[in-house]
Amino acid sequence: MMKFLDLTDLADDRLERVLELAKELEQAPLREALRGKTVGLIFMNPSLRTLASMQAGVAQLGGHSFLIQPGAGSWKLETRDGVVMDGDAVEHVREAIPVLASYADLLGVRCFAEQKSLADDLADRTIQAMAALCPKPFVNLESAVSHPCQALADWKTLEDLEVPRRGGKFVLSWAYHPKALPYAVPASALHTAARRGMDVAILRPEGYGLPREVMAKAEALAKSSGGRIRETSDRREAMDGAHVLYAKSWGAPQCYGRPAEEAPLRAPLKDWCVAESWFESAAPGAKFMHCLPVRRNVKVADEVLDGPRSVVIRQATNRLHAQKALLMEMLS
Amino acid sequence: MMKFLDLTDLADDRLERVLELAKELEQAPLREALRGKTVGLIFMNPSLRTLASMQAGVAQLGGHSFLIQPGAGSWKLETRDGVVMDGDAVEHVREAIPVLASYADLLGVRCFAEQKSLADDLADRTIQAMAALCPKPFVNLESAVSHPCQALADWKTLEDLEVPRRGGKFVLSWAYHPKALPYAVPASALHTAARRGMDVAILRPEGYGLPREVMAKAEALAKSSGGRIRETSDRREAMDGAHVLYAKSWGAPQCYGRPAEEAPLRAPLKDWCVAESWFESAAPGAKFMHCLPVRRNVKVADEVLDGPRSVVIRQATNRLHAQKALLMEMLS
Amino acid sequence: MMKFLDLTDLADDRLERVLELAKELEQAPLREALRGKTVGLIFMNPSLRTLASMQAGVAQLGGHSFLIQPGAGSWKLETRDGVVMDGDAVEHVREAIPVLASYADLLGVRCFAEQKSLADDLADRTIQAMAALCPKPFVNLESAVSHPCQALADWKTLEDLEVPRRGGKFVLSWAYHPKALPYAVPASALHTAARRGMDVAILRPEGYGLPREVMAKAEALAKSSGGRIRETSDRREAMDGAHVLYAKSWGAPQCYGRPAEEAPLRAPLKDWCVAESWFESAAPGAKFMHCLPVRRNVKVADEVLDGPRSVVIRQATNRLHAQKALLMEMLS
Repeated sequence: MMKFLDLTDLADDRLERVLELAKELEQAPLREALRGKTVGLIFMNPSLRTLASMQAGVAQLGGHSFLIQPGAGSWKLETRDGVVMDGDAVEHVREAIPVLASYADLLGVRCFAEQKSLADDLADRTIQAMAALCPKPFVNLESAVSHPCQALADWKTLEDLEVPRRGGKFVLSWAYHPKALPYAVPASALHTAARRGMDVAILRPEGYGLPREVMAKAEALAKSSGGRIRETSDRREAMDGAHVLYAKSWGAPQCYGRPAEEAPLRAPLKDWCVAESWFESAAPGAKFMHCLPVRRNVKVADEVLDGPRSVVIRQATNRLHAQKALLMEMLS
Repeated sequence: MMKFLDLTDLADDRLERVLELAKELEQAPLREALRGKTVGLIFMNPSLRTLASMQAGVAQLGGHSFLIQPGAGSWKLETRDGVVMDGDAVEHVREAIPVLASYADLLGVRCFAEQKSLADDLADRTIQAMAALCPKPFVNLESAVSHPCQALADWKTLEDLEVPRRGGKFVLSWAYHPKALPYAVPASALHTAARRGMDVAILRPEGYGLPREVMAKAEALAKSSGGRIRETSDRREAMDGAHVLYAKSWGAPQCYGRPAEEAPLRAPLKDWCVAESWFESAAPGAKFMHCLPVRRNVKVADEVLDGPRSVVIRQATNRLHAQKALLMEMLS
Repeated sequence: MMKFLDLTDLADDRLERVLELAKELEQAPLREALRGKTVGLIFMNPSLRTLASMQAGVAQLGGHSFLIQPGAGSWKLETRDGVVMDGDAVEHVREAIPVLASYADLLGVRCFAEQKSLADDLADRTIQAMAALCPKPFVNLESAVSHPCQALADWKTLEDLEVPRRGGKFVLSWAYHPKALPYAVPASALHTAARRGMDVAILRPEGYGLPREVMAKAEALAKSSGGRIRETSDRREAMDGAHVLYAKSWGAPQCYGRPAEEAPLRAPLKDWCVAESWFESAAPGAKFMHCLPVRRNVKVADEVLDGPRSVVIRQATNRLHAQKALLMEMLS
């Protein structure tokens, strides 16, 4: 009985098998693998792709899903242990998770970073606690620091596009956003590229280096895959020969959980809106990736999103195929 | 691959076929026509009948649906092109629609009038844009100016009741409501009656004539069907010999998008609450129609809704049968 | 065509049959009994267990469900008759219930106490009105004064644990909660124990006796089953030899609907938080029951919920089995 909390929960052979199956499902989407199975979906945060693709995917495999949205139609959940519950939350995950697990064959949970304590969020404390309470297979549908279903879809997208593993040049670029966003997607994208053995440049303004723990994991993955990680704030240098620019915004770690303090650091960075000009030194046909949703003309210009190098729809479509393959792997 | 944005998207022969099939489905509701099919439902606005009947209908045809509610459990969507997305909306329909379409075999979208620009709403700019972005069959589940699933159900209801096409007397009456409502339902009801070749009276207070564009389309439909359209504020005259009174409230076009300006015009019209006395000069057994939801004793008196001439439940029930027939027509 | 508004709607033989079937479904959860059936779920209030277990249960029996949440994605519903609907509610249950029933083979409705009029709530006015409007089988998913699906699951739980019917000692204990809660769960638990012929003690602080009507029904049930009901505020005496402590909070009837007036009565009762020490005089292996959700360390201490006597997860799990059995009984 497997927990899928991070892409590293799939060892290399299983990862390749899931990717292969995802490709098959793209061609032949209907299966009976989940006939009679119930998937419980618990969304503590908004969703479009994850919610729709999980529901569609389960149905296309012959199964059924139910949806619980704590705080919107369901009780607000407490996640901390030992607390006196005299506040907003009327139910504890210590009850909610085992109960919902008893109705289902697998639980999928979305639970974003609280953005209070950097250490807690980097340890993915909340989703780890929920997974530990769940006696059934459990899928992370985006947590404080990991979005492994996105990572799986992104890996498939890179394969679809025949971007080389070793020697492929992958730029993870910070982009402007009005708010300090968490690290789940940039960490997952970075770790995906590192594990593929790619030559990774993290392009970000001064002060926006990713947290040490995220970097250390990337270094370890790169080391065993033969990849390479570097950081720079020089756009032209980073993009030189790049096959892929993956854009994402995130908060400055030194101001984590204190957005007012970070605001003056962020304010002058509005020119970090990805434009065609960023690709001048890139490899011919270099691709633009983003996990979506994206604020147009804030993080990325229309000309990029509507142009031929954008593969954001393909990434999102691959969510369906990748997650269906994952569910089949986990429930078979 | 068909788009169903307005009842006029069904040519006469297809319309008759869908109505025939709807009648068959009323008798034998279970089919396998959507086996393995996924229907994506995107509701930007509240719903009871449309939401329930689409979910029930898809299931009764052997398919599955998923539901995305932008702004409630999903990201708020931007619909305007070229905009700098630095406000509330975090995702653009240019991404959302193709992505959701990639998970589904058909999309249904509900998107009410913004009630800012009359020209934009009359052009049904938003739903047209979304339909254009969708590479799959697409159903309008009520837009700024059209509610074609309601129109289809209303047409079936008129057939069920054996209200004559040519020569049938149809009164579309304005009714009081505390707010200025959009034109989707009155336009669809008017165009339905006009296309059936009926003798249509639009009964409304001074200042509440429907927009010129809505009227022009009705005139054109009446012309080719042999029907007739007239407007009056004389209740008795309008109802003389009427087979059907269809009640609906709508805003005054000259104040569109400026409710404060319209309020004094509307305030003295509270007696436009349909009562039994309205039917004195009507044909024997004249029917009362309304699309629901309806504010009881504001738009219509209890005595009408609870009496034998009300067919509002039948109209709503026909939503199920009509939409199932439409889905079969579109996906077969 | 059956209405399940209260556990008393199941006569003894049907109750035993449903409990037997629930046990079978626990072992073999998948059936085809609801193939082609549609269950409409109408939730006017938040839910976790009921919502998830109904959706999962219907699917595991081969059927489909749809969900309508008035006030959140659907129109706010009016339930009073004869009212002029010029307020928040835009649709009346007189339309909503027949319409939704026409799309489904069974409706399930959750509608909590309004907590305005004690007499109205004790008469379960709202759910009774909705059930009367529904021409299809109808299930109460928690109303003002009854939670019969919980009662059914609790009954099964007591059987699972081999708690004796006659002679079994059942303590229904008031517990502290920051708000005055309605009587649906305590009434259902009390009536369940009384109908099982148990020796029931209601343990509550002065001023928190259950309403006379709730007590009278319990007395009548106890009389015909050979059970016994008493009330006390002496914790040790109540718990003497107890097999089960069932904890729940509720409001003081004499302040019903006036929470500000009740607050000073409630404030000094924070030590009514169930702890291990409460079980000193209980039978060996005495169990702790609660319907969930529960505020930890407010109503019950962690030591009880996380210890071996807690059967709250089993109770919640039994919701699934019991409701599936009920649906099969009602729809077969």
